Amino acid sequence: MSATPKRSDPVRVALDAMGGDHGLESTVAGAARLSLEASPVRVLLVGDEPAITATLGGLSHDPDWIQVVHAADGVVGMADHPRAALDRAPECSINVAARLVQEGEADALVSAGNTGATILASSDHFQRLPGVRRAALAAVYPTEQRHGERGDPFALMLDVGATLDATAEELVGFAVMGAAYARIISDNEHPKVALLSNGTEANKGPRHIVDAHALLANLSTVNFHGNIEGLDIPRGTVDVVVCSGFLGNVVLKMLEGVSEVVSDIARDAYARKFLWKLGLTMLSQGLQQLRRMTDWKQYGGAPLLGFDHVVIKAHGRSNSGAIRNAIKVAAKAVDRDLAEQIARGLAPMVQGSSAE
Amino acid sequence: MSATPKRSDPVRVALDAMGGDHGLESTVAGAARLSLEASPVRVLLVGDEPAITATLGGLSHDPDWIQVVHAADGVVGMADHPRAALDRAPECSINVAARLVQEGEADALVSAGNTGATILASSDHFQRLPGVRRAALAAVYPTEQRHGERGDPFALMLDVGATLDATAEELVGFAVMGAAYARIISDNEHPKVALLSNGTEANKGPRHIVDAHALLANLSTVNFHGNIEGLDIPRGTVDVVVCSGFLGNVVLKMLEGVSEVVSDIARDAYARKFLWKLGLTMLSQGLQQLRRMTDWKQYGGAPLLGFDHVVIKAHGRSNSGAIRNAIKVAAKAVDRDLAEQIARGLAPMVQGSSAE
Repeated sequence: MSATPKRSDPVRVALDAMGGDHGLESTVAGAARLSLEASPVRVLLVGDEPAITATLGGLSHDPDWIQVVHAADGVVGMADHPRAALDRAPECSINVAARLVQEGEADALVSAGNTGATILASSDHFQRLPGVRRAALAAVYPTEQRHGERGDPFALMLDVGATLDATAEELVGFAVMGAAYARIISDNEHPKVALLSNGTEANKGPRHIVDAHALLANLSTVNFHGNIEGLDIPRGTVDVVVCSGFLGNVVLKMLEGVSEVVSDIARDAYARKFLWKLGLTMLSQGLQQLRRMTDWKQYGGAPLLGFDHVVIKAHGRSNSGAIRNAIKVAAKAVDRDLAEQIARGLAPMVQGSSAE
Repeated sequence: MSATPKRSDPVRVALDAMGGDHGLESTVAGAARLSLEASPVRVLLVGDEPAITATLGGLSHDPDWIQVVHAADGVVGMADHPRAALDRAPECSINVAARLVQEGEADALVSAGNTGATILASSDHFQRLPGVRRAALAAVYPTEQRHGERGDPFALMLDVGATLDATAEELVGFAVMGAAYARIISDNEHPKVALLSNGTEANKGPRHIVDAHALLANLSTVNFHGNIEGLDIPRGTVDVVVCSGFLGNVVLKMLEGVSEVVSDIARDAYARKFLWKLGLTMLSQGLQQLRRMTDWKQYGGAPLLGFDHVVIKAHGRSNSGAIRNAIKVAAKAVDRDLAEQIARGLAPMVQGSSAE
């Protein structure tokens, strides 16, 4: 129940230690690894205390940066129905972790567990920021073109499944939230934002996209690039792609499918012939770019945007390295005050609608 | 104004000779090439007669299989607004070609020109089949898994942009039409059909998809596989993927974008280093599979389904080989009576709604 810390205090991240396909094996190892680095982050490992402590005991770590918080009700399984599971087990790890953030014991929430449960626990415990009509889940994905100061080979897409459909005003909110996140994570002061549609013209697409286009064209806080088409997704023409959660879900899973197919083909080729192995070795530098595009899941997690606290959803398949990255990303978002950035971007919309 | 020919008569295809990025260069060459093959198709080349005749004069061909039909009003440009262009130039090549089919002078329409104009010319000249609420544009796309008797490495997706949204009943129509086309083109007697959604469960997705799922589960004429996710698109889990035109457009263009990015990477690697060239040569067999997936546009065209005549939209970038393939596909669809297959598949729906 402590007060919100000043920004100079070290960031504290509540990690759902039970969530994800690999459970403690990935989460505890990720936190342990990070605790030994030059710029550690304080991690609260939330879950079954005896199990976490036992796992932690077998790993080298710096105990000054890790705290274990017991959650008595187990974990929401990856296939469980989120609402039913949370109601049945109020003291499950994701709920306890969210409560720690709500009560000021931690600054951000990270989970590799059930996506729906992470979203529900967040909306149960956190407030939406002023002007945010709907939270959105954003995902980084690999692109041919590079983005931001550091030349990141990733763009951001949202919503990718927090909800199904979106009104024009909600799409505008997604645009602002995505821009704020890209600004922080990619050191990209003016990220290019676009709506995903079936043509680049302002009048292309379903009604809600046409209307969102008109609103964004008049919003000074977003560097609006107009509409893009499916072609532009892998190219990476823009830094932030805005769409409904249904469309974003299909597109993101399709990118995942493409990467799996490419991996399959490469593996097949490698297994089959000595000459091919030699060929692959010779090509190794050229193939790095392709491999990077098939392995982007290691790069941080998907932020759940729109709440007054930072939430990062790591991929269910995250290994310890991916968990470590998700914690770092969460700490960076807290450090750079993501919530304030979003509120500032939405201010013209809030003022514009204050007469309503 | 001749009567519909008996099926034993040779199939006659009206080809918009002016349409497509390469115009006569591809269309006339495609028809000329086909006329010399063992199983030719009768082609009516529709467009500027002097220009067509001049182009044809420079190519070896069998004049018994080619007829030139003059269209006085030029061509609808690839970037023209379809409705405005057709109204301004009623005797343009796509309109004249559609009229030849309407009047029984030809059995099928093929065009590599403006997609919107091809769809509008078809709906202006043809009738929708009984039970079809909306026409749909279907596209073949490359998959990891193979399909049908011949093991085609392609699946079918529809709608990919004839319209934007679709009701549950319209999605059911798409499912039936896609199944009929897959049956004919891939020699696949019972093609697996699925709805594209954000989860495999019957209750996943927007309302119209949930409702379509319930209708398809009870439709005996379709081998319904349930819902698939984005992941299943490149895998090729099913033979026919059903979705709204907006979603299909984004997905299809994204696949195109992915293939372009893969080609770029391969070209870069090839250009850069002798060792890489050697590596690529050694890998050539392994890379064939990947190359096939980036070059699927050569394989026939996109059928516009739902009308009482066969319409094939070839890709704008089609070369003569792709045009030749589109003509062959159109002839095969006429030969196997695509319209009858669709009508038969929709019969339970028509009977079911006859009490309305």
